[in-house]
Amino acid sequence: MAAGLALLAAGPLLGAADGEDVARLLLALAAILVAAKVLGELAERLGQPAVLGELIAGVLLGGGVLGIVPAEGAPGEVVRVLAELGVVLLLFEIGLETDLREMFRVGPASLAVAVVGVVLPFLLGYYYWVFVSHPASADATDPATAAVFIGATLTATSVGITARVLSDLGQMHAREARIIIGAAVIDDILGLVILTVVSGVAAGGPVSPLGIVRTLAVAVGFLVIAVLVGRFAMPRLFDLIVRMRVHYVLLVSAVAFAVGLAGLAAIAGSALIIGAFAAGLILSGTNQFDTIEHEVGPVASVFTPIFFVSVGASVDPRLLDPTNPAARGTLLIAGALIVVAVVGKLAAGWAAPWLKFRRLVVGVGMVPRGEVGLIFADIGRRSGVLTDEVFSAVLLMVMVTTFIAPPALKALLGAPSPTPEPPA
Amino acid sequence: MAAGLALLAAGPLLGAADGEDVARLLLALAAILVAAKVLGELAERLGQPAVLGELIAGVLLGGGVLGIVPAEGAPGEVVRVLAELGVVLLLFEIGLETDLREMFRVGPASLAVAVVGVVLPFLLGYYYWVFVSHPASADATDPATAAVFIGATLTATSVGITARVLSDLGQMHAREARIIIGAAVIDDILGLVILTVVSGVAAGGPVSPLGIVRTLAVAVGFLVIAVLVGRFAMPRLFDLIVRMRVHYVLLVSAVAFAVGLAGLAAIAGSALIIGAFAAGLILSGTNQFDTIEHEVGPVASVFTPIFFVSVGASVDPRLLDPTNPAARGTLLIAGALIVVAVVGKLAAGWAAPWLKFRRLVVGVGMVPRGEVGLIFADIGRRSGVLTDEVFSAVLLMVMVTTFIAPPALKALLGAPSPTPEPPA
Repeated sequence: MAAGLALLAAGPLLGAADGEDVARLLLALAAILVAAKVLGELAERLGQPAVLGELIAGVLLGGGVLGIVPAEGAPGEVVRVLAELGVVLLLFEIGLETDLREMFRVGPASLAVAVVGVVLPFLLGYYYWVFVSHPASADATDPATAAVFIGATLTATSVGITARVLSDLGQMHAREARIIIGAAVIDDILGLVILTVVSGVAAGGPVSPLGIVRTLAVAVGFLVIAVLVGRFAMPRLFDLIVRMRVHYVLLVSAVAFAVGLAGLAAIAGSALIIGAFAAGLILSGTNQFDTIEHEVGPVASVFTPIFFVSVGASVDPRLLDPTNPAARGTLLIAGALIVVAVVGKLAAGWAAPWLKFRRLVVGVGMVPRGEVGLIFADIGRRSGVLTDEVFSAVLLMVMVTTFIAPPALKALLGAPSPTPEPPA
Repeated sequence: MAAGLALLAAGPLLGAADGEDVARLLLALAAILVAAKVLGELAERLGQPAVLGELIAGVLLGGGVLGIVPAEGAPGEVVRVLAELGVVLLLFEIGLETDLREMFRVGPASLAVAVVGVVLPFLLGYYYWVFVSHPASADATDPATAAVFIGATLTATSVGITARVLSDLGQMHAREARIIIGAAVIDDILGLVILTVVSGVAAGGPVSPLGIVRTLAVAVGFLVIAVLVGRFAMPRLFDLIVRMRVHYVLLVSAVAFAVGLAGLAAIAGSALIIGAFAAGLILSGTNQFDTIEHEVGPVASVFTPIFFVSVGASVDPRLLDPTNPAARGTLLIAGALIVVAVVGKLAAGWAAPWLKFRRLVVGVGMVPRGEVGLIFADIGRRSGVLTDEVFSAVLLMVMVTTFIAPPALKALLGAPSPTPEPPA
C-alpha cells in the first residue's frame, strides 16, 4: 500500500502508473458495498434494522480488524468524500420526503427537544467529570477544560443513523420522525456553536459571546434564507429544466443542487448536512418532485452504505475487550459517559409537554451520537486537552449510543415494512 | 486553495477543520454537473451529440480557463477517482447492452479493424517523425526514440467518447457499434502491450519479446476467464441475491461487481475499463438484467459527465491560439499528427472486406484518442523523450480527434432519438 501511495502522489496526468492505486480503491469500494449489503441482510433477518449491519460491516472492514477501508493519505480522502456524498444524498432524500408544513407544526417541540437534549447531557457530563472521582491518569490539563470537552461530545445527535432506521422501518412520515429530524437539524446548528466554543477553549483563547452569536446567526440565517429563496425560485427553474432534452437532466440538476447547497452551507459557516437537508426541503416544492425522488433513490443507495461503513470503520474493537487491562480505565469512564449520554437524550423526549407523541421513541431517536461526537473528541485529543484514555472512552460512548439506538427503535416501532420471503 | 489543501492533509479524523476543503470539492462537483448539462443541451440544440458539450464544459472549467476542476493534490485525486467511476459505470452499461453472440459474429471484423487501426497510425507516425522535416528544437533525444512514442500516441482509441455518441444517437445496437466497441476493447488490450514497450523504451532498457507476450496473455486471459466463469456463476448468484430483502440489493451488488472486476482487471495487469465492460457482458446473462440496467442508469448519469468534463479539463486552450508565436511550431507538428491520426483510423474501416457494414462510420468511430493517448504522451514527456513542444502537439492531436468524431458521427448517422420540444 505504501508503494501505491507513493505512486499516487507522483503519478502521471491520467492513469497508467497510479492505475494500481485507483484499482485498489475500487476493490475496497466493492468490498464495502458487498459487506454492507450482506451484514445489512443478516441484521434484517435477525429482526434488526439494516443500518446496524452496515455499522458492523464497517467495524469488520476497518483498521481495527481487516484494514480494508482506507483511512489515510489520498485513498482515505477519496473514501471520506464518497462517504460525505453518501450522507449528503441521504439528508437530501430526507429533505425531499419532509413536509415543510408538518415541520412547522412540530417546530416548537423539536426546538424544546433539541435544547434539552443538548443542555442536559452537557451539564451531566461536565459535572460528572468535575465532581465524580475518575482515574487521575485521565487528566491531561486542568479538569475543568477537559470537562467542557466531555460535555460537548455528549451533545450532538447523529441524524443519519436515526433517519435511516426510521426509513428502514417505514416510519419517516410519523410525527415522532418529524420531531426527531427537526431536533437533529437544530442540534447540528447548536453543534456548530459548541464547536466554536470548544475550538476556542482548545486554542487556549477566550471565547467571545459575540463569536457565539455570530455562528448561530450564520447557521440559522443560511437555512432560513436558502429555504425562503429556494422555495420561490427552484420550482420555476425546474419547470424550465424539465423542458431540456439531455438524459437525466432533472436528476443531475437535483444532485448538483444538493451537493452545491451542501458545499455552500459549509463554506458559509453552517454544515454540509444542513445544506443538503435544505436542498431536499426546497425541491420537495417542485412539480418534478416525484421523478427526482424516484431517480435519486438508486444513486443514494450506492453511496449511503459507504457513509455508515466509514462510521463503523472508525471504531477500534480492542476498546471493547474487558480482558485487556489497558482497556479497563477506559471502560469505566465510558460506562459513566454512556449512562449520561442515554439519560440526557431520553429525558429530552419529555421536553415538549404540550404536544402528544411517543416520548420514548423521540428520546431513543436522539441517542446516537455518530460521527459528530467524534469530531469534538478528535479536536480535544489533538489539542492535548483529552488523554488517549479519555478519547477512547468518548469513542466507546459514541459507538455504543450509535449501536443501541437502531435495535431499541426497532423494538419500540415494530416490524419493518417489507414482507419476509421464505428462505431458499 | 493552498490553505485548504494544507488543512486537508493535516485534517482531523472526520470533518470540522477539513470540512471547508470537502465543501469546495462539492461545489466544484456541482459546477461540473451543471456545466455538463447546460453545454450538453446547447450541443444537442445545435444538432451535435451531448458529449461534445460536456467536453467543451471541461475545457471551460479546466485549468486553462476557469480553473474550477481540481487537478492537483487530494482534491485532484478525488475528482480523478470519481471520473474513473464514471467511465467504469459507462463501460459497465455498454457491456450490459452488448449481445455476446453478436459480438462473436463481428469478432473477426473487430480484430481486423483494431489491428489495422493500431499498426497503420503507428507506422505513419513513426515514419513521419523519422523522415519528414520538423523543427529541430522539437528533438530532445534521438529522433528514433521520439518517433516510437509519437507512433504510440497515435494508436489507442477512446471507446468512451464513441460509445457515448452512439448511445446519444440511439445506435448502440447497430452492427457498426458492435464492431467499434469490439475493436476499441481489442485496442485497449493492444494499448497495454504498447504501454509495456514504450515504458521500456522510456526507461532506456531493452524490451523483451517475452514481456510483450506475457502482457498480451494476461489481458486476453483475464477477459476470457472472467466472462467464461462469470457467465456460469453470476446468473446463479443473482438468483440468490434477488431473494434478499435489503433495499436496492440488486443494484448495489451489480455496481460492486462492476467496480470490483474493474479493480481486479487493473491489478491483474489488464485495464479498468476492460474489467468494467466484462462485468456488464457477464451480468447481461442474469435473469435480473432488466432491473439492473434500469437502476444503473441514474447512477451512471451522475458520474459519466465527471469523466468527460475531466477529459476536457486536461486541455489547454492556449495551444489553439495561432496568434501566439510560441504555439506555431506546435501547431505545425500537430497538424501533421492529426492528418496521420485521422487517415490511419479511417483506413481501418476498410480492414474487414468480408463483412458488410458502413465502413466510414466504423473508421470515424475509431478516430477519438481521448485520454489513452495522453497517458503515452505524458510518459514520454516525463521521461524526457518528448519536448514540451511535441507533447503539446500530441495533446492537440488527441484533443482534435476527440472533438471531431462526435459531430462527424452525428452527420453520418442522422438525428438523435429524442423528439425536439418547442422552446418556451
